[in-house]
Amino acid sequence: MTVSLKLPRRVLITDCADAKGLIAKITGVCFDFGLNIIKNDEFVDNTEGRFFMRTELEGDFDEPRLLSALYEVLPAQNHTVLKPGGRKRVVVLVTKEAHCLGDLLMKSYYGALDVEIAAVVGNYDKLAALTEKFDIPFHYVSHEGLDRHQHEAALLEVIEPYGADYLVLAKFMRVLTPEFVARYPNRIINIHHSFLPAFIGANPYRQAWERGVKIIGATAHFVNNCLDEGPIIKQDVIHVDHNYSALEMARAGRDVEKSVLSRALGLVLADKVVVYGNKTVVF
Amino acid sequence: MTVSLKLPRRVLITDCADAKGLIAKITGVCFDFGLNIIKNDEFVDNTEGRFFMRTELEGDFDEPRLLSALYEVLPAQNHTVLKPGGRKRVVVLVTKEAHCLGDLLMKSYYGALDVEIAAVVGNYDKLAALTEKFDIPFHYVSHEGLDRHQHEAALLEVIEPYGADYLVLAKFMRVLTPEFVARYPNRIINIHHSFLPAFIGANPYRQAWERGVKIIGATAHFVNNCLDEGPIIKQDVIHVDHNYSALEMARAGRDVEKSVLSRALGLVLADKVVVYGNKTVVF
Amino acid sequence: MTVSLKLPRRVLITDCADAKGLIAKITGVCFDFGLNIIKNDEFVDNTEGRFFMRTELEGDFDEPRLLSALYEVLPAQNHTVLKPGGRKRVVVLVTKEAHCLGDLLMKSYYGALDVEIAAVVGNYDKLAALTEKFDIPFHYVSHEGLDRHQHEAALLEVIEPYGADYLVLAKFMRVLTPEFVARYPNRIINIHHSFLPAFIGANPYRQAWERGVKIIGATAHFVNNCLDEGPIIKQDVIHVDHNYSALEMARAGRDVEKSVLSRALGLVLADKVVVYGNKTVVF
Amino acid sequence: MTVSLKLPRRVLITDCADAKGLIAKITGVCFDFGLNIIKNDEFVDNTEGRFFMRTELEGDFDEPRLLSALYEVLPAQNHTVLKPGGRKRVVVLVTKEAHCLGDLLMKSYYGALDVEIAAVVGNYDKLAALTEKFDIPFHYVSHEGLDRHQHEAALLEVIEPYGADYLVLAKFMRVLTPEFVARYPNRIINIHHSFLPAFIGANPYRQAWERGVKIIGATAHFVNNCLDEGPIIKQDVIHVDHNYSALEMARAGRDVEKSVLSRALGLVLADKVVVYGNKTVVF
Repeated sequence: MTVSLKLPRRVLITDCADAKGLIAKITGVCFDFGLNIIKNDEFVDNTEGRFFMRTELEGDFDEPRLLSALYEVLPAQNHTVLKPGGRKRVVVLVTKEAHCLGDLLMKSYYGALDVEIAAVVGNYDKLAALTEKFDIPFHYVSHEGLDRHQHEAALLEVIEPYGADYLVLAKFMRVLTPEFVARYPNRIINIHHSFLPAFIGANPYRQAWERGVKIIGATAHFVNNCLDEGPIIKQDVIHVDHNYSALEMARAGRDVEKSVLSRALGLVLADKVVVYGNKTVVF
Repeated sequence: MTVSLKLPRRVLITDCADAKGLIAKITGVCFDFGLNIIKNDEFVDNTEGRFFMRTELEGDFDEPRLLSALYEVLPAQNHTVLKPGGRKRVVVLVTKEAHCLGDLLMKSYYGALDVEIAAVVGNYDKLAALTEKFDIPFHYVSHEGLDRHQHEAALLEVIEPYGADYLVLAKFMRVLTPEFVARYPNRIINIHHSFLPAFIGANPYRQAWERGVKIIGATAHFVNNCLDEGPIIKQDVIHVDHNYSALEMARAGRDVEKSVLSRALGLVLADKVVVYGNKTVVF
Repeated sequence: MTVSLKLPRRVLITDCADAKGLIAKITGVCFDFGLNIIKNDEFVDNTEGRFFMRTELEGDFDEPRLLSALYEVLPAQNHTVLKPGGRKRVVVLVTKEAHCLGDLLMKSYYGALDVEIAAVVGNYDKLAALTEKFDIPFHYVSHEGLDRHQHEAALLEVIEPYGADYLVLAKFMRVLTPEFVARYPNRIINIHHSFLPAFIGANPYRQAWERGVKIIGATAHFVNNCLDEGPIIKQDVIHVDHNYSALEMARAGRDVEKSVLSRALGLVLADKVVVYGNKTVVF
Repeated sequence: MTVSLKLPRRVLITDCADAKGLIAKITGVCFDFGLNIIKNDEFVDNTEGRFFMRTELEGDFDEPRLLSALYEVLPAQNHTVLKPGGRKRVVVLVTKEAHCLGDLLMKSYYGALDVEIAAVVGNYDKLAALTEKFDIPFHYVSHEGLDRHQHEAALLEVIEPYGADYLVLAKFMRVLTPEFVARYPNRIINIHHSFLPAFIGANPYRQAWERGVKIIGATAHFVNNCLDEGPIIKQDVIHVDHNYSALEMARAGRDVEKSVLSRALGLVLADKVVVYGNKTVVF
């Protein structure tokens, strides 16, 4: 349908057991409500018998009424949600490296990422000055002298008041506990500095250099309870050769890391990423 | 829906003016006919106000009845078609270079391209031996001593009896007349050895070398009346550097050419390419 | 040779007619001076009969003495130079778009580009605030009410005192006169928002969208007298599809533009780029 | 130097402890012998203190005399060799999949790989017909009823008479014993159907699909005693998404596999690959 930028847009994510006629039923309900479908993407995982659809809707409507009309045509077990569509709010966690944070700040500044960076939180204070250049509050929450749970409690104390939609780990070099992760289910995005599942864990560039690989990469994923094992959102790689030392691989890798993280966040902000099990559908 | 390989599959390509409710109406008709939608992809060109949808259908049905039911819900002006879905038949035209033809023959041989290569036609006989290794007839139709129209008449005489769905120009180094092209509207696929629209015309690798480019590419497109100007299906590139002479660029480019042509043909064979104006939607 | 970070490093760029024994003669002179060769790269353009070599040297030496020893073994006509090796100084010219400038500022800030950005000059003042966040002077030199030569005179007045090694056109949307360019021969680096030589001139993304291309790109090149025609340093591309409007192509292209410009500048700063005629050797 | 295609070309690979003046000394010896250096590439691994150089030589010379002149200027411990330069001979080992063998046969047929495929050996006979199309002998050496050592003895009986420079494992799905590998040290090239070191071992595409990766790849490497662990020559990747089943990933991966194997073999045939430890220098 013709796009009018004035009308509000919302995204309907359907996620249910597969069945015949689902597209007709869902889009039929939308049509009954007089809604315009801006973009419709559908996917069926035939191995799992599961149906996914992303429907970008334009028009005024009563959300609860639309949802209950949809629930009547959908299988009883479904995870269908309506995403509000507006600008989302994130809190960024960092340690010492500036490249990922810098890219998020800069892209947010000039509008390439439609996001509100509510705050940056670091377990070192090294990135305070950079953050504050962009008039964003920086919270220094050192882990020194604290055990993991104490540190996470301190982090949550500063993070939670912001009511963030997502936490972004922009080279935050601490492993989070399952308790912390459980507070933000599929709402924590991490950038891992390797092409997962190669080189899980620490020092992936040194591992890559020692193995003599000809390609290095980066992986943005949601965080679950296992280190470097959540659902992958985006990956990219660059070619390297024997001329690269481990240090030069790390330096070259930073460009991929920041680019993968920014693009993954962009997809999440646009409600294009659906998590199921340990995987994602990226519409 | 669950995939059963036993049932026939057909592809419905909807192409019409955009309107509210089209997805609901089209998929509703399919549902009424008891059909299973294997995959549904939709696109609206908002600049043109035009709606495109590719619906992969499984199930037994009466084609004319389905189409007339669809025409009742679609705008009067539409180009909606039902593609039969089975293996398609092509005739390949060549001159002297073996790489694109070789890749098509080989991929067809081991099943990576689901296509029947009915015949190969060359204006030189250099590729006859290669073609015949694969038990495919080769027709040598020299252009020597013939004007363009005479040559094309001779070509058509051998091509037409094959009743090909598509002609594939696998480095066929002759420019076709509008009359010839008109016989196969959007059914002739060409590989151009440059990243169009850069280096239109002859000797693109020499042009690229003289310009000192750092990337070379290839473009597969449908042929229309203007040289190197039809709707683009697929493009790809490789990086080069100062070490490449024009000859080495050409050699490196062959790998991209053959790969782009094969992938473009694969998309066309799977009924994933819709032409509109001078562009394509590739679902 | 083993690398000691304490000793000064300089780069010898040999550029002369090809002849037998050049590598032996040049590296022999370096050896006689007790110098360590950190890295040696050589290239011969056989079409032109021209020899290029980049020799990264470590050690203390008297530059004029080394050069005159080299000139004795080199052909009389040569363009051999010794590059000082330390941090270089640039002035960045901009118009209104922030992404390329932002990437240069950020990478310089966290050390991914070893460069001194002495100043930013804009024909609009839109990027003053961004520049000043990084404590770099911004000069607003409007072109309003001035003809091209008057504007360039005004630009030079603020640029020249900085004694920049290079000018970087980070989306500076004005065409420079030959007189201006002649002041900085092969010392002005531009980013063009297309994969040159496709879509020369204005509005390349709209041109690309209208042509229905499946790949868009960016080109960093030295500026010479012809618009978009100087020696190419670096190019890169991304894949797009029918879902991209001209505006979305432009948005996606910005990431390639900034990345290509930064990488090109990095190569130039490391004395890895040799210009000859309308081409570059990038070691 | 100007290239004359008539004179013989040989490649000198220097591999020794790093020391000052090595380039000058080696190229000085070549100059004393009146040789033309077509291309010279140099690399120092500073971590290991090891020097590598590839020198492409043109001219007539007495090999033993040149080598003994070189040994006088090189460190006592060196692995410097002179490669003959002409067309090399390989034997290809296969199991059932045609794509890698097909690409090698085709590229060799039309001259994109300058190699003599002396024979193809399979532990199934499925690829006999394809091989014989190209007038190359196929040997069927079944492993049925044989233990590993008996099978390898049977393989060697047919392979060894060919006096191959390299063995190419073109999807040969058997793990070789250390005894077999020791017969062809750094002379067996394998294609692994994953981006090593991710997904070592069997069924990498299923592993990749289960992990939900967004990129899949292939790795060509020399075979040493550990499965999937020899020195990597070449890697490449393609992007995939949720639409790919494990089977479709495997299908898409075949194009990368064949391309990576062919390119790796091309580099080896051109004497551009130097193995040291578990790594390669690829000039």
